[in-house]
Amino acid sequence: MNFDRFFDPDPAQRAIARELYAEVAALPLICPHGHVDPRLFADPDYSFGSPVDLLIIPDHYVFRMLYSKGIPLESLGVPPSPQKGEGAGVRVETDHRKIWQTFADHFYLFRGTPTGVWFDDELANIFGVEEKLNSASAQRIYDHIAAKLAAPEFKPRALFERFNIEVLCTTDAATDPLTHHQALKASGWRGQIRPTFRPDGVVNLDAPGWRTNIDALSAISGVAVHNYATFIQALENRRAFFKALGATATDHAALTPFTEELSTGEADTIFRHALRGQATTDDATRFTGHMLMEMARMSIDDGLTMQLHPGSLRSHNDIIFERFGADKGADMPIGTEYTRNLRHLLNKYGNDPRLTLILFTLDESAYSRELAPLAGHYPALRLGPPWWFFDSLNGMARYFDQVMETAGLYNTCGFNDDTRAFPSIPARHDVWRRAGANWLAGLVARHFIDLNDACEMMAALATGLVKDAYKL
Amino acid sequence: MNFDRFFDPDPAQRAIARELYAEVAALPLICPHGHVDPRLFADPDYSFGSPVDLLIIPDHYVFRMLYSKGIPLESLGVPPSPQKGEGAGVRVETDHRKIWQTFADHFYLFRGTPTGVWFDDELANIFGVEEKLNSASAQRIYDHIAAKLAAPEFKPRALFERFNIEVLCTTDAATDPLTHHQALKASGWRGQIRPTFRPDGVVNLDAPGWRTNIDALSAISGVAVHNYATFIQALENRRAFFKALGATATDHAALTPFTEELSTGEADTIFRHALRGQATTDDATRFTGHMLMEMARMSIDDGLTMQLHPGSLRSHNDIIFERFGADKGADMPIGTEYTRNLRHLLNKYGNDPRLTLILFTLDESAYSRELAPLAGHYPALRLGPPWWFFDSLNGMARYFDQVMETAGLYNTCGFNDDTRAFPSIPARHDVWRRAGANWLAGLVARHFIDLNDACEMMAALATGLVKDAYKL
Amino acid sequence: MNFDRFFDPDPAQRAIARELYAEVAALPLICPHGHVDPRLFADPDYSFGSPVDLLIIPDHYVFRMLYSKGIPLESLGVPPSPQKGEGAGVRVETDHRKIWQTFADHFYLFRGTPTGVWFDDELANIFGVEEKLNSASAQRIYDHIAAKLAAPEFKPRALFERFNIEVLCTTDAATDPLTHHQALKASGWRGQIRPTFRPDGVVNLDAPGWRTNIDALSAISGVAVHNYATFIQALENRRAFFKALGATATDHAALTPFTEELSTGEADTIFRHALRGQATTDDATRFTGHMLMEMARMSIDDGLTMQLHPGSLRSHNDIIFERFGADKGADMPIGTEYTRNLRHLLNKYGNDPRLTLILFTLDESAYSRELAPLAGHYPALRLGPPWWFFDSLNGMARYFDQVMETAGLYNTCGFNDDTRAFPSIPARHDVWRRAGANWLAGLVARHFIDLNDACEMMAALATGLVKDAYKL
Repeated sequence: MNFDRFFDPDPAQRAIARELYAEVAALPLICPHGHVDPRLFADPDYSFGSPVDLLIIPDHYVFRMLYSKGIPLESLGVPPSPQKGEGAGVRVETDHRKIWQTFADHFYLFRGTPTGVWFDDELANIFGVEEKLNSASAQRIYDHIAAKLAAPEFKPRALFERFNIEVLCTTDAATDPLTHHQALKASGWRGQIRPTFRPDGVVNLDAPGWRTNIDALSAISGVAVHNYATFIQALENRRAFFKALGATATDHAALTPFTEELSTGEADTIFRHALRGQATTDDATRFTGHMLMEMARMSIDDGLTMQLHPGSLRSHNDIIFERFGADKGADMPIGTEYTRNLRHLLNKYGNDPRLTLILFTLDESAYSRELAPLAGHYPALRLGPPWWFFDSLNGMARYFDQVMETAGLYNTCGFNDDTRAFPSIPARHDVWRRAGANWLAGLVARHFIDLNDACEMMAALATGLVKDAYKL
Repeated sequence: MNFDRFFDPDPAQRAIARELYAEVAALPLICPHGHVDPRLFADPDYSFGSPVDLLIIPDHYVFRMLYSKGIPLESLGVPPSPQKGEGAGVRVETDHRKIWQTFADHFYLFRGTPTGVWFDDELANIFGVEEKLNSASAQRIYDHIAAKLAAPEFKPRALFERFNIEVLCTTDAATDPLTHHQALKASGWRGQIRPTFRPDGVVNLDAPGWRTNIDALSAISGVAVHNYATFIQALENRRAFFKALGATATDHAALTPFTEELSTGEADTIFRHALRGQATTDDATRFTGHMLMEMARMSIDDGLTMQLHPGSLRSHNDIIFERFGADKGADMPIGTEYTRNLRHLLNKYGNDPRLTLILFTLDESAYSRELAPLAGHYPALRLGPPWWFFDSLNGMARYFDQVMETAGLYNTCGFNDDTRAFPSIPARHDVWRRAGANWLAGLVARHFIDLNDACEMMAALATGLVKDAYKL
Repeated sequence: MNFDRFFDPDPAQRAIARELYAEVAALPLICPHGHVDPRLFADPDYSFGSPVDLLIIPDHYVFRMLYSKGIPLESLGVPPSPQKGEGAGVRVETDHRKIWQTFADHFYLFRGTPTGVWFDDELANIFGVEEKLNSASAQRIYDHIAAKLAAPEFKPRALFERFNIEVLCTTDAATDPLTHHQALKASGWRGQIRPTFRPDGVVNLDAPGWRTNIDALSAISGVAVHNYATFIQALENRRAFFKALGATATDHAALTPFTEELSTGEADTIFRHALRGQATTDDATRFTGHMLMEMARMSIDDGLTMQLHPGSLRSHNDIIFERFGADKGADMPIGTEYTRNLRHLLNKYGNDPRLTLILFTLDESAYSRELAPLAGHYPALRLGPPWWFFDSLNGMARYFDQVMETAGLYNTCGFNDDTRAFPSIPARHDVWRRAGANWLAGLVARHFIDLNDACEMMAALATGLVKDAYKL
């Protein structure tokens, strides 16, 4: 791994980038949003399994690219969805050496992609692999990683400490008992793992299994949810429980950022329809829009930072969804409108500095057109870092270019890795820090800002903004 | 201020940029579109007041950023809207030193923003401030600027001459008596200040105070407006009046660039409904679309260049609008469609080279998709420079990148500063000239064009295109 | 022409770009999609005519820019549409020296445009012109080119060989008898010219002359088309005929990429309505959406690669269309949605690796938002190169930037020139190869990939991917 990687080749800019990066390279990692399983840390004996268990099977960033070139998910060991099971005729590869070989044979597909960059970094910096991954080296590297994974230094808690993670937040359903978080709290281990309250499964009336989720909500909150009032009460109960276990934020997914305030009567009518299985698509849209406003109201009350991730059309590929379930690399972005959709919420709560609402997007055309102007005005708004497909060198460069002049750096909130791939965390943060250093170095080299300001901005990008936005 | 600021750090490109910039650095400023108050120049005794009166209170680019970080507009001295008045319980800060200190304490928010760049330039090049603005230097700098503003060289006319402004166009309601422009004409002062005809308040049926504006139009034109025919007559009367006072252009804002031709009967019916307060939203949309076509027709007749600024959803924040009124940093862009919306107008008038229609946008995704292809075909079309949030270094770079290859440089029209902040004018033009020099230097350094062509293009960017497009 | 043209000025990046470019500069040109008339090669005595016949009159990239600055198409020799004829009062310039002078007088309009770049390249590298084209040199250069065109080395077949074209595919209506392709096959000339099946004129019910086209389809296929079943039969017949003459691909234009599967009964009802002239706009939209799915089905059967070019609103300018017909530089892009529109097709056929569906766009905002994520998942999908207005240096840079990280290089398909301007082909491929080398050099210089990988990617960009995607 080159010491100057990802910096502009211009010697003047590169020298400044190197200097700025050096200021933050050793700072701890703040991970306010992601999808790592808390069980990794709750269970001190947790083992990552084979290299394939760790690096291939659970990572849809990896297998979607292989799938796109015609490699069946079955041959990569991706398990069928529980509803289907092996009985449905799906034969899944179980030979992990064979899966690894398939992956290595096609590793060239990742050239110039963020997954390729992270993978190279993980191999070199976590596992100490010194050769390039390809067909010839595949089995040697497999052996090397397998040996490492068997060692105690490669237990999750040990890696957490080695990665210098200061805090890692998970994402948890509103109905989650947070068993692992409770165990962690009780364990005395000093690693900070915090839950995040994600109520999509109960507030989006068209979520798969919504009715079951409502029953689970009743059970876990102790509030028998039978109408809108008890629903709100149960949610407030759960938020308090999450907060007691360390949560500082909530997270919300919606197909669009549409918001609208329903009267309590309307909300109750729709909710009762839904309980009877009679809610329409329009009901679901309006109810979700209303609940986003309710969540903003509750955030003002309890201080939880609110995150909104709109614009992903989930499970676009029916065949893959039916065979393997959700989160298999088949979620596709759609054009996303913020100015009109968020107007109701922002008019009611956007002027209140007690609210922190962090907006994400999969539609980069909204950066300069809507998101930066909105964040550059409303006190409650902040822009999240480049999300998902844009968590990449070019994605970050476009974000810096299109967001910062209008929103201002201080209306953004640093980085989050948003990953379920625990070992990719250091690589992802490193890309952000290098991309940020390079961006600032460009401003300095062009005499747009001075080096002093750049140093302060660099620290803000690395840890300052994220701690502030998520109250960590 | 570094001599090479905003140029690429690559030594080859930078050397060419420096050479190109030097060719135009001393050329006069042509300001064909903006919002400077003509009273500044009509009244030879006009004083700018305090540094805060000049630089903070009237500039929504400045105070919207502070507001976004939770600083109330009241504490920045922004006056409540006349309808509300202090009586409505709004307590506005009047201590300008205190406001200045608040601003300086938060000046770091502008790092990497165009407002920060302009402000640094103004402090250094207009006021001769030699230290960086921050909490510690705030009061010293306040004293320094206040002393300067008291001197006769800092009267508006003196600065106009010092800034080397050749012509400055204001923006004036169709109902404006142009008193200041008349006074200027009579004064014998040689500075060229020209009005621009902006009829939004009377042609957009849903404009605030439309009915009152129509009465004002009747009064000022001497044409009793009671139907569509007299409305058109009154507008033609006003255009002639503006032209007689030096106007060479009109300006039009609309939420979308929708155009449609109504029959005279339809237009008259809608207009009469509006006079009775019965026009619907749909009526207003169609009438605005029709009036854009009428304005194009009149432009062919009287030769006034037509400007269209669509896509701003004005006063998105109800609380701010109710408390402080319009133009308070809360106008938000929306996605804007040009290809279909302008089709009626372009089919009727777009082939006529007597018409010059300049299009602006707040939706950069339209640059390469719609605006450049349209401008690269229709003789009547030109593209305006990057507007508002995009009047910035990166905004300009994206504009050059996304527009020029398809539209061609000669279907654009140079720069306009579009500002009400008079002292920011030189800084804004300087950013454009430097950004343009850097863009052209990049083309030369890549052997895309030769230096000879680049010199001619540079002159066109600085003054040639704008004089031609606005007939100045 | 500078040896290093279009490469980044940074010496490190430039040196790598030069090295990568050198690897592919001499490779043959693969031209899988374009609009060159096959008659050029079928008729061994074909002559290009005058410089204006070759370079101005047929090239809407050229004359649309002159038209945009008020130069009438008549004065450039553009012939009126056959329906109108000279009788309609259109006086067309016939003095080719005069037309050439007009063009040269305005050649400055092409500064910084791809057409300018290609033209410079053609003049220098094909015709050996050594001076710059302008008003003064115009007639000398005309003489020079005219003399060259009279020589046998400037016959189309000779140039085809000199250009080192390995294969060139034309685009041909479903009803085309492919007379020239048959003649070519019989001629024994070793140049590969292949047809491409483009059925828009018969599958888009609202295509101009649709009813006549259906009769032509009946006649040429020998299948009397009187209902949906015979229509499908006739299309399959024609596809087989095209394939027998060397076609490896089909091409489809549609205003949007909307897809939907109709029942056979519905399809038949709509088709019968259309035969009676009773199809509605909605019928046409649904039928086109259905036929795209049918074409995917047939491609799986016969192995023809499927291309989709949506998003062009054809003949936006009524006056130009009425006077001169289609393809006169007045086609305008519209915003284009892929995620939802293609869902039906992709769910039915997108998982089948036997299908290759190549998507193009005139809406760059879809690159990172929709096209790259879709191509990075569905096995059947590939992204076509930057199309039309984006076949340019900056267009390619944006494409590499916005597509490659998410889709991966290997889900794209190299370059196609998509041109009817035969002599511009080498220049266009050269721009692609240089832009590609520069992109990869940037990745190497930033230590994103290593030089080894870059060399393999360069070869893929130049010829590997295109041969694979089009089965050439």
